[in-house]
Amino acid sequence: MKILGIDPGLATIGFGLIEKKGYNTYKCLDYGIISTKPTLTLAERLTQIRNDFDELLNSLKPNHIGIEEIFFSQNVKTGIQVAQARGVLLELINEKQIPFTEIKPNEIKSMITGYGHAEKHQIQDMVKDILNLSERPKPDDAADGLAIALTCGYLE
Amino acid sequence: MKILGIDPGLATIGFGLIEKKGYNTYKCLDYGIISTKPTLTLAERLTQIRNDFDELLNSLKPNHIGIEEIFFSQNVKTGIQVAQARGVLLELINEKQIPFTEIKPNEIKSMITGYGHAEKHQIQDMVKDILNLSERPKPDDAADGLAIALTCGYLE
Repeated sequence: MKILGIDPGLATIGFGLIEKKGYNTYKCLDYGIISTKPTLTLAERLTQIRNDFDELLNSLKPNHIGIEEIFFSQNVKTGIQVAQARGVLLELINEKQIPFTEIKPNEIKSMITGYGHAEKHQIQDMVKDILNLSERPKPDDAADGLAIALTCGYLE
Repeated sequence: MKILGIDPGLATIGFGLIEKKGYNTYKCLDYGIISTKPTLTLAERLTQIRNDFDELLNSLKPNHIGIEEIFFSQNVKTGIQVAQARGVLLELINEKQIPFTEIKPNEIKSMITGYGHAEKHQIQDMVKDILNLSERPKPDDAADGLAIALTCGYLE
């Protein structure tokens, strides 16, 4: 089963595709980002995200998607923008009838590292080990995408 | 020129369509709501919103759209949901290449009533008077849609 993890954002959307074999064996198939330029308007970025994400889904053909829920920290303005981008992503996933799971940020930390307050580099090191990668996946958002895919694999 | 005002939401999206004639004469053409049931998942509601809004735009054929910006008050959870719905609306407006203006909540109050802290019923009374309606437009979200359309007409 191919599981795609999605880390929503407006400027950068991270993704990671893994294959789940048997009960708990995982292989990394692909990872990367969709990015939009700040010179575009919000509306233009949303349309680019929809088009690029559509293309990504058609190309990767995941059987299941894990998409992170939004957690508002300090910056409410950023949070609103990310939420608008996430709406576009979630709508398209549903329109394409791909099964999905919404993943909470602390679920990722505790499922991957066993510790709900783990640091980003600890998660990345675990992702690297679990998937047998030669180095930490880069950039951070792509590593987050892989972590979300793994968490989704553990939960499903 | 036909101006469509949109009050974004997840459960209820209000809309109001007006015709702007000459410099500052307005006529009400239509108003109403798109609503989604709480028994649907968030993703299902987003897809219904996209489909219903697409149908609305095809039927009303506005020349310009005014869409309210999101203002976060008490409830952050509601705000995130509304933002996700707004992303779907804004993306579709941009995809259809309809000119639009993003309107701030306090712009609506001050443009319609001349007072940035006006109460909802004061705005509704002004909308009723400006558009020569026999009564306050109902429900509230549809009245908000008309107020947003009028504000957009004043600003453009």
